[in-house]
Amino acid sequence: MLVVMNANATEAEIAGVVHVIESLGLRAHTMPGATRTAIGITGNKGAISLQHFENLPGVAEAIRVSKPYKLITLDLKQDRTIVDIGGARIGNGSLAMIAGPCAIETHQQAFAIAEIVKKSGAKFFRGGAFKKIVSEALDEPGVDLVEKYADMIQIGARNMQNYTLLRRVGRSKLPVLLKRGMAATLEEWLLAAEYIMSEGNYQVVLCERGVRTFAQHTRNTLDLAAVPAVRRISHLPIIIDASHGTGKNYMVTPLARAGVAVGADGLMIEVHCKPEEALSDGAQALTLDEFEQMANEVRSIHDVIN
Amino acid sequence: MLVVMNANATEAEIAGVVHVIESLGLRAHTMPGATRTAIGITGNKGAISLQHFENLPGVAEAIRVSKPYKLITLDLKQDRTIVDIGGARIGNGSLAMIAGPCAIETHQQAFAIAEIVKKSGAKFFRGGAFKKIVSEALDEPGVDLVEKYADMIQIGARNMQNYTLLRRVGRSKLPVLLKRGMAATLEEWLLAAEYIMSEGNYQVVLCERGVRTFAQHTRNTLDLAAVPAVRRISHLPIIIDASHGTGKNYMVTPLARAGVAVGADGLMIEVHCKPEEALSDGAQALTLDEFEQMANEVRSIHDVIN
Amino acid sequence: MLVVMNANATEAEIAGVVHVIESLGLRAHTMPGATRTAIGITGNKGAISLQHFENLPGVAEAIRVSKPYKLITLDLKQDRTIVDIGGARIGNGSLAMIAGPCAIETHQQAFAIAEIVKKSGAKFFRGGAFKKIVSEALDEPGVDLVEKYADMIQIGARNMQNYTLLRRVGRSKLPVLLKRGMAATLEEWLLAAEYIMSEGNYQVVLCERGVRTFAQHTRNTLDLAAVPAVRRISHLPIIIDASHGTGKNYMVTPLARAGVAVGADGLMIEVHCKPEEALSDGAQALTLDEFEQMANEVRSIHDVIN
Amino acid sequence: MLVVMNANATEAEIAGVVHVIESLGLRAHTMPGATRTAIGITGNKGAISLQHFENLPGVAEAIRVSKPYKLITLDLKQDRTIVDIGGARIGNGSLAMIAGPCAIETHQQAFAIAEIVKKSGAKFFRGGAFKKIVSEALDEPGVDLVEKYADMIQIGARNMQNYTLLRRVGRSKLPVLLKRGMAATLEEWLLAAEYIMSEGNYQVVLCERGVRTFAQHTRNTLDLAAVPAVRRISHLPIIIDASHGTGKNYMVTPLARAGVAVGADGLMIEVHCKPEEALSDGAQALTLDEFEQMANEVRSIHDVIN
Repeated sequence: MLVVMNANATEAEIAGVVHVIESLGLRAHTMPGATRTAIGITGNKGAISLQHFENLPGVAEAIRVSKPYKLITLDLKQDRTIVDIGGARIGNGSLAMIAGPCAIETHQQAFAIAEIVKKSGAKFFRGGAFKKIVSEALDEPGVDLVEKYADMIQIGARNMQNYTLLRRVGRSKLPVLLKRGMAATLEEWLLAAEYIMSEGNYQVVLCERGVRTFAQHTRNTLDLAAVPAVRRISHLPIIIDASHGTGKNYMVTPLARAGVAVGADGLMIEVHCKPEEALSDGAQALTLDEFEQMANEVRSIHDVIN
Repeated sequence: MLVVMNANATEAEIAGVVHVIESLGLRAHTMPGATRTAIGITGNKGAISLQHFENLPGVAEAIRVSKPYKLITLDLKQDRTIVDIGGARIGNGSLAMIAGPCAIETHQQAFAIAEIVKKSGAKFFRGGAFKKIVSEALDEPGVDLVEKYADMIQIGARNMQNYTLLRRVGRSKLPVLLKRGMAATLEEWLLAAEYIMSEGNYQVVLCERGVRTFAQHTRNTLDLAAVPAVRRISHLPIIIDASHGTGKNYMVTPLARAGVAVGADGLMIEVHCKPEEALSDGAQALTLDEFEQMANEVRSIHDVIN
Repeated sequence: MLVVMNANATEAEIAGVVHVIESLGLRAHTMPGATRTAIGITGNKGAISLQHFENLPGVAEAIRVSKPYKLITLDLKQDRTIVDIGGARIGNGSLAMIAGPCAIETHQQAFAIAEIVKKSGAKFFRGGAFKKIVSEALDEPGVDLVEKYADMIQIGARNMQNYTLLRRVGRSKLPVLLKRGMAATLEEWLLAAEYIMSEGNYQVVLCERGVRTFAQHTRNTLDLAAVPAVRRISHLPIIIDASHGTGKNYMVTPLARAGVAVGADGLMIEVHCKPEEALSDGAQALTLDEFEQMANEVRSIHDVIN
Repeated sequence: MLVVMNANATEAEIAGVVHVIESLGLRAHTMPGATRTAIGITGNKGAISLQHFENLPGVAEAIRVSKPYKLITLDLKQDRTIVDIGGARIGNGSLAMIAGPCAIETHQQAFAIAEIVKKSGAKFFRGGAFKKIVSEALDEPGVDLVEKYADMIQIGARNMQNYTLLRRVGRSKLPVLLKRGMAATLEEWLLAAEYIMSEGNYQVVLCERGVRTFAQHTRNTLDLAAVPAVRRISHLPIIIDASHGTGKNYMVTPLARAGVAVGADGLMIEVHCKPEEALSDGAQALTLDEFEQMANEVRSIHDVIN
């Protein structure tokens, strides 16, 4: 942490801050500058409260320097994490595609979709009724169910900071797909992943699905810069949900292409046999024809950048 | 719902949209305008998917007209809801003050604070160890505990869309304090209240605690316009959390005054005996002296506007 | 426009709204619904103030239906606009690349950069000292200068709603590059383009350069969904500024690839001979080597999707 | 500035950063911590580019410490600035009220409004036709006009970063009302004031008028925490525009009360004789009756907190 003093802070005020730092068992590094003095703090094991210092006399501002996570970082582990879902992999350099309907309406429909998305190269299925299934859990009993019948547990955006749920999936043997909360900073999202990992489950895939901004032309604003930002800090794989990330059918394919071009490890896409009859979220789903064409395009883009 | 056609939509495209509307058992009202035709839809019981229509040929845009809530509205109930917490009331025209430390550190400390905030007119206590206690529940077992030992269940901002938890408190006999999610629209917040009420619990108090914006000078941006906006739509009481809503000690009193001036039914404030020694969130807590002065000011402001 | 009445609005209130509509010379279409009545308004030439109606007795909400622009729309002109900059083109299906240093430091440097970016296929140059130059104007005398020495006038994000400046470039014979304001909705941005075009200059290129959000890992959040959104409404070409849109050197190439993959007509990229010595904005500039590799990748991606 | 190294940065990388700092004529303060080394930089006169350092090998992050302004700060001048508008004052502890119609429609109307708002204690008038007039300038010729006919120059939100215009009013003898840009950080806003003052005009009043967020229930989100935040840093007076800050008539009075309660030096309010007939922005204007009642309430609140 760095404590920045007011330009007209007195010697006594500076000494006061140093005293507080040392009384906490930490080390103070005083740096007199042209107009202000700053005081660096080292020696802390965990986080110190910023605002603890902001109220001391003569202090202009306290600035956090250390990040509160460790397990997710490249500092700890330089090799990229490869997540294994029943033999299929995310993060190994190939393009992972998680496809399927938002909700299963009939078995017949689910199998029809599964058949075709499989041909297009998707190895994972969303929503049930298939091998290598990714399924969302909303609470602890939900995790029990997903553990029985599916291969990967999805934590939705609304639950990204539901610590009870994060703790539970951190003790699961299944890999976890962690969606970014709609107002989560990069740091909060990585902290949620850290929280899962701190319980022992290291098989975590991050999923960017758009954040909330003032913009009204999409349901969410897909933040593709999150991909290089995560890469710079973390060894965890990251995929893009182009369906929820846009909320509009006509945007899904262009943004899926952009997600692969920016360097994501995979895509999550909603597909529907007859989108015009879909019961929920139908209008953001691709038809099977649209899915096939999108899959061809993103595979070619993936080849270009690898 | 209103479906707006492109300026150059053909007669056949307009007829197509009308056909889809009627095949859903709804009624279409075609309104030819100077440059475009719009088609109103009536007769629907629940919500229709906007995007269902946006993909039809010739359609420029679909616009939702009806709101998805009913129980929270003044349409349903014109008298303001008064919430009863063991005999003390929120929403009856007097100013409710919920005060206390963020976390209880010692019994001695808790009682010392309780003693003084009570003198200042606060009737509720946050964090435990006192009568008429408001306590947060993070999950279903947490609700069981709060039901045993406290008087009001708080749902935190991070859990505002945790439907499992909302359903559980909707079946509780205790009143619920529902904090706004940090990126929740007014509509989503009111929908969460509606969700609780639809399970049978009508004793809900809304709490504005700041939303996330680009601004960096506060932890959250307190959205005080939410108070008149809620009043125009709903009969539920609404209070302001000036501590979490700012995250900075020196802002708490001015924003608490503003919260009362804008017309809120009450305040939630963190208080601490020795803020400079607080273990968590200390720097946003008021000292007991600061609390007393703030309480005097807000009571006078409350008198002015009532 | 659509006026939505309260659920308990009286017949007299509905009649009152209809009366106001008709007294303005417009036509009212009353649509009684299951719980509320809505009233469609047609016949208006320009925009009507939403809030004019929101204050009438019994009104819950007024919703704007028509968009306030016309010249930029596909309704008016279905062929894509191709902008001509001294013979080179943006919007004709090939990939336009505008490259160069943020500010010219020496002539020698400018020519060195120009030489290499030209080899990589860039046809336009930013910052001066080259043929087919794009240069920013900050005010009216600035436009006079740009008209003398350059080939395209850039309007920066901070000036997107500087109507004096927009009017001036609307009367210029040079094409205009219109950057999106950092908090501009899609509609406001298109309105700014409409404003330029309404003065007679139809040669407008839109440039997405990131918007301001709560996210802190980039300088701005690049909103790539703006590309399909603009395509659905407008015939104007749109390019992506991956340098200002991220503010970080290591993000420029991935986001440039994403910009081409999402379907943009071109890119704007900052290049620098010796970025570690750059006087301003240097850290977001690509080195010449990085530029060449990026250019190769985006050309391949452009081939895939065309 | 503070440069934070990666946890696994080598000695050579640390030495490299120190070398760059020293070669720029600055002083490096190396602080080895438990997991990472941080390097403080002192001795710089102006701002150093953050990103200059972020690209050096081994660097995790660079953090700016000094703020880029000086003239606006309490460091420079501890007495509050009092701005004089033809004898009337803003910032002297009394409550300044700037009231008037958005645009003058007839002389008769302007005088009728002026008469009544004057009785309610407003000393300034917006929009013309009265003594002590505040009038907006959109460009340099606009400033010439305002200088001839009015008493204070308003810079609107859209022009907050129009540096040509800021420079011009910085050389004027009239005081300046500087509205906050709708996506401006506190720092950018204060920098714009600094820019005006650096040209010699120290008579600047800040005006908070709402920022753009995801919230849709108001036109803008009024950020009242800006008032204590400005007070902590600057000697300049600050007022609240409750009309544009909400955009809705029914919110103006509650937010005006909140603005005074939070400690602002004054208010800006739109008033209209017959709001239902107003040509522009009418629905956010108060009637004369509403204005009088609001004025009474805010004067009482001002008394409470002073």
